[in-house]
Amino acid sequence: MRGKELSEVSAAQASREQELIDLVVASFRDMDDDRLRTVMQQLVRQLHAFIREVRLTEAEWNAAIAFLTAVGAITDDKRQEFILLSDVLGLSMQVVAVNNEAYSTATEATVFGPFFVEDAQLIQNGEDISFGASGQPCWVEGTVKDTAGSVISGARIEVWEADEDGFYDVQYADRRQAARAHLYSDENGEYRFWGLTPTPYPIPHDGPVGRMLKAAERSPMRASHLHFMVSAPGFRTLVTHIFVEGCDYLDSDSVFGVKQSLVKTFTLHDATESTPDGRGLDGKWTRARFDIVLPPTKL
Amino acid sequence: MRGKELSEVSAAQASREQELIDLVVASFRDMDDDRLRTVMQQLVRQLHAFIREVRLTEAEWNAAIAFLTAVGAITDDKRQEFILLSDVLGLSMQVVAVNNEAYSTATEATVFGPFFVEDAQLIQNGEDISFGASGQPCWVEGTVKDTAGSVISGARIEVWEADEDGFYDVQYADRRQAARAHLYSDENGEYRFWGLTPTPYPIPHDGPVGRMLKAAERSPMRASHLHFMVSAPGFRTLVTHIFVEGCDYLDSDSVFGVKQSLVKTFTLHDATESTPDGRGLDGKWTRARFDIVLPPTKL
Repeated sequence: MRGKELSEVSAAQASREQELIDLVVASFRDMDDDRLRTVMQQLVRQLHAFIREVRLTEAEWNAAIAFLTAVGAITDDKRQEFILLSDVLGLSMQVVAVNNEAYSTATEATVFGPFFVEDAQLIQNGEDISFGASGQPCWVEGTVKDTAGSVISGARIEVWEADEDGFYDVQYADRRQAARAHLYSDENGEYRFWGLTPTPYPIPHDGPVGRMLKAAERSPMRASHLHFMVSAPGFRTLVTHIFVEGCDYLDSDSVFGVKQSLVKTFTLHDATESTPDGRGLDGKWTRARFDIVLPPTKL
Repeated sequence: MRGKELSEVSAAQASREQELIDLVVASFRDMDDDRLRTVMQQLVRQLHAFIREVRLTEAEWNAAIAFLTAVGAITDDKRQEFILLSDVLGLSMQVVAVNNEAYSTATEATVFGPFFVEDAQLIQNGEDISFGASGQPCWVEGTVKDTAGSVISGARIEVWEADEDGFYDVQYADRRQAARAHLYSDENGEYRFWGLTPTPYPIPHDGPVGRMLKAAERSPMRASHLHFMVSAPGFRTLVTHIFVEGCDYLDSDSVFGVKQSLVKTFTLHDATESTPDGRGLDGKWTRARFDIVLPPTKL
């Protein structure tokens, strides 16, 4: 049985509920770290406001505890269900939004995701990041510039993506490293590499987060994308993706990562068409351009 | 590096952040269960508001994920760190507050806690609930009435408490059942039993929740208390405690469970003083009175 709406409760009841919030907020007053105190006190205010506004029932609270317990139980070194939960509630993307304010013509950021690996293989411009990963070859090229239009040479560009089966290398048990690499923009601020045409894939959805998506009739699919992380001294590091124009899930990306400015044309070419670097190919291939603009560190 | 305050962000930035919230809220529109849809959408709004208001950094988001992962990792059949987390943030108590509105002279409710057991031993009025649990004997008596002052006979009264070492029976490995029982109010609405004088004890604080309390310089101690759950047909079930007047932690109860109306006088008696039922005792004992008033089911 659920109680009244918040607007219907008596002033005395509302005041008791508010007094409890004040008491909990005050309990964090002696926290040494000023910033952590602010964060905890605001978290308390917001979570209590949620409970008060929806008049959360005891049965619902029990269900929430059981849900979080299930999220904890499936999480291990390989599977991070708390990140998935944050992702599908748009919280990861909101953290990106808050920390990467749009600036002038700078390229927009999007979610980092759980599949980045430090120290991926270095390749030279024009080389192939796939290292045996399955998929349709895709030539990716572009420039790295600042917001004034000057080229940035020597920018470090990390790229990583899923194979055509929808899996990243780290999701395989054999410790392969594939479909990821890093390279540097050249003296003209240009970069180019062979990768794979991105394909859509579902986030892991056999756990509590997947059950939540199902209850909401939401798709677990991510729109096809290729990850980038671009850094250069004096510039704000850009974490982003490019998405494939015309892909099925641009309007329903399960982690809310799509931004229109990041949707790029991947032109389809026949095996008979000559490739940008003269490489011979047996089948169709695609080509995409992604010009990157980095904002300065200090805006 | 942390960004601007929310009040300082540009209208365009604020609007991008709000658009993301709208998108996430809309993603739950097809949820079949109306109530669950409302709860999820409000949760989304409140958690996003938290991130926006404190301008949560990516490092802080990482720390939050790591904290929740640690809460999940220590949780098992015996240890429920998510409930502890809810408790020390006052969320459990807020759920109690929202679902147990004060009514007339009805006894106030407080947190249920994780130590209740179904089907505890039945005792007759005047018998002992301790079943060998260590502690100072305590005679507890009172009446069960409705808000009009009429006695309620046959009310089911569940009582449970920690022993003098601060542990509930279920915290021991040997499956003992002690310091808990149920009894019924008699034809005059009266009840009485021997229990143990409640003593303070810490909530489990060797995990992430304990580390959070330490960082906030908060005590893990609960004020000394004895649990009650009282039910009778036609009345709202009361889940509450009584607390020991003069106990050290009444002002800093780690789960915010103390209400002034629930603090009771436990009078101390010498072994030589005669007990209410003529029982002979070797040492000091205490005596407390708790008159219970149940609100009707339909307020």
